Amino acid sequence: MEMNQQWRLAKRPVTDLSEDDFEWSEQAIPPLQAGEVLIKHLYLSLDPTNRLWVNEEDSYFPAVVIGDVMRGGGVGVVEQSLNPRYKQGDFVQGMLNWQRYAIDDGSGISKIRVTEDLPITAYHGIFGPIGMTAYFGLMDIGKPRAGETLVVSAAAGAVGSLVGQMGKQAGCRVVGLAGSDEKCRWLTETLGFDAAINYKTANIRESLLATCPKGIDIYFDNVAGEILETVLEQINIGARIPLCGMISQYNNEGAITGPKNFANILMKRATLKGFIVIDYFQREKEAFDYLEKGLRSGQLQYRVDVVDGLQSAPKALARLFNGSNTGKLIVKVDPSWQD
Amino acid sequence: MEMNQQWRLAKRPVTDLSEDDFEWSEQAIPPLQAGEVLIKHLYLSLDPTNRLWVNEEDSYFPAVVIGDVMRGGGVGVVEQSLNPRYKQGDFVQGMLNWQRYAIDDGSGISKIRVTEDLPITAYHGIFGPIGMTAYFGLMDIGKPRAGETLVVSAAAGAVGSLVGQMGKQAGCRVVGLAGSDEKCRWLTETLGFDAAINYKTANIRESLLATCPKGIDIYFDNVAGEILETVLEQINIGARIPLCGMISQYNNEGAITGPKNFANILMKRATLKGFIVIDYFQREKEAFDYLEKGLRSGQLQYRVDVVDGLQSAPKALARLFNGSNTGKLIVKVDPSWQD
Repeated sequence: MEMNQQWRLAKRPVTDLSEDDFEWSEQAIPPLQAGEVLIKHLYLSLDPTNRLWVNEEDSYFPAVVIGDVMRGGGVGVVEQSLNPRYKQGDFVQGMLNWQRYAIDDGSGISKIRVTEDLPITAYHGIFGPIGMTAYFGLMDIGKPRAGETLVVSAAAGAVGSLVGQMGKQAGCRVVGLAGSDEKCRWLTETLGFDAAINYKTANIRESLLATCPKGIDIYFDNVAGEILETVLEQINIGARIPLCGMISQYNNEGAITGPKNFANILMKRATLKGFIVIDYFQREKEAFDYLEKGLRSGQLQYRVDVVDGLQSAPKALARLFNGSNTGKLIVKVDPSWQD
Repeated sequence: MEMNQQWRLAKRPVTDLSEDDFEWSEQAIPPLQAGEVLIKHLYLSLDPTNRLWVNEEDSYFPAVVIGDVMRGGGVGVVEQSLNPRYKQGDFVQGMLNWQRYAIDDGSGISKIRVTEDLPITAYHGIFGPIGMTAYFGLMDIGKPRAGETLVVSAAAGAVGSLVGQMGKQAGCRVVGLAGSDEKCRWLTETLGFDAAINYKTANIRESLLATCPKGIDIYFDNVAGEILETVLEQINIGARIPLCGMISQYNNEGAITGPKNFANILMKRATLKGFIVIDYFQREKEAFDYLEKGLRSGQLQYRVDVVDGLQSAPKALARLFNGSNTGKLIVKVDPSWQD
């Protein structure tokens, strides 16, 4: 039997993540107990929210304990099963964590259907937590109506790019903020956004005024911080603001503070609602059906940014915070695997 | 014909309000034009939100212009009418402003029914904007469910005291924050709150922990600032926070900043929704029916703090911001009026 390889949390990053925060470890895979499943990890998902899990404070999940295998969602294939619900060759998704092999009692994983036109990577790129986050955040909280203006931050990211496309399907004017001209071109030329703003080079206030002449009805917020503040200046009465993430703030020391113009939430009778996708897992099928239909019709597109080898995971994760990834960032855990 | 007496805005207060910010003026009442109604102003409402209207920036209403009569809601009686919808002796409510007599074309006022057991002051104390604010903020946004914990700030105020009583009717555990031991006793001994915290003398964090052992499900926020921040530490997953007012911040220079622990809104999947009662005027009857039933059954109580004479209005308004009023603050515009 192969050895397992793992990244364990070595210490807690204070600001930016680095490889030193993790420790590479190898150890034998223990024999399976009754009911357990051995999963060969194929694709690991890297997400901004991972940064929260390594802080000392619990987030919506308990903090990862120093010395434990780093937490992460993944897709894998069953190699061995002592659980009647799973057999060798089944593809599964779940918290497979930062390791080559995972053992699960069956309660933490679910089967996925892999076909020629629905590759494994689609489960990270458009289905699974990413697609559900975009779908429920926009539909349940944003409540888009035709003719409204939707602004999305981190718009070239995995979630943001889907949100914008869904907004177009709902008949909205869609404006995205992204961190490079190349990303902005992808949004407008390929995905059909009405406008895109390079937040690193543009004057955000002026650019929003120019691209949202009727004000902002929905702001799908992935970043918090200054962009949220600037958007709040330009929201319409009754605006909806799904709070999905606060990536601009995750590497900061200290607390994530609210916007300086907090009173605008009252003056404009806006709704801010934080949400975490785990609360929507029971409604997975509703999102999956919408996403599969959009994917097959070509109305929803996604792109994945695949990094080779589990060894690369810490360095790759850090890329999410400087914006150098394009699309859904995933790690091909076993480079020899052929989809 | 009597002269009209008015308070006009003389200059914009920077921090605390003072009488110097207003100018007393007397002038003849112009003759009525076709369609107009002359109203003798009886009771003027003083509300925390008045403070926002005298700032330079527009709020949900345009800023009061320097030199204009100060804006304010009132109840009056029709003295003369050239409008077929109103006749002498009708009682009306509307923006009668800080003056003895108001002239309206009929579009800015509505008739109220005054009976022996529904005195005029009830329209300020429990019906009208106050009751609607409490009702729609709690019911539409707070969505109280039996067994949940509701926290109310400015709980001895006109809106807060109604919100707490409504929460009890809905089966909630209700905890109020108020600024004196006398107010706290009124909340628990007369209004049936489960607990009350004197925010001026108590440790708010510890007191909330002690009085909300199951966490906080709804926070009806009238004050913003430090109390909002402390409540956010203790909210449960899925908490609802109607943002009704930010009185702790209105006299501050500079912007009203958001809470330092803004990320808790995301972690706890909380909903913050700002609201202004004017958006609910179309649903007035729904609130009125609920409030009248509660008043007649004795399940809803209110108290009014009546100040005599229009001349007293500026000094009386300032009392809202040091907490020295008890219950709904109103000015009896004409001290000689007999209800």
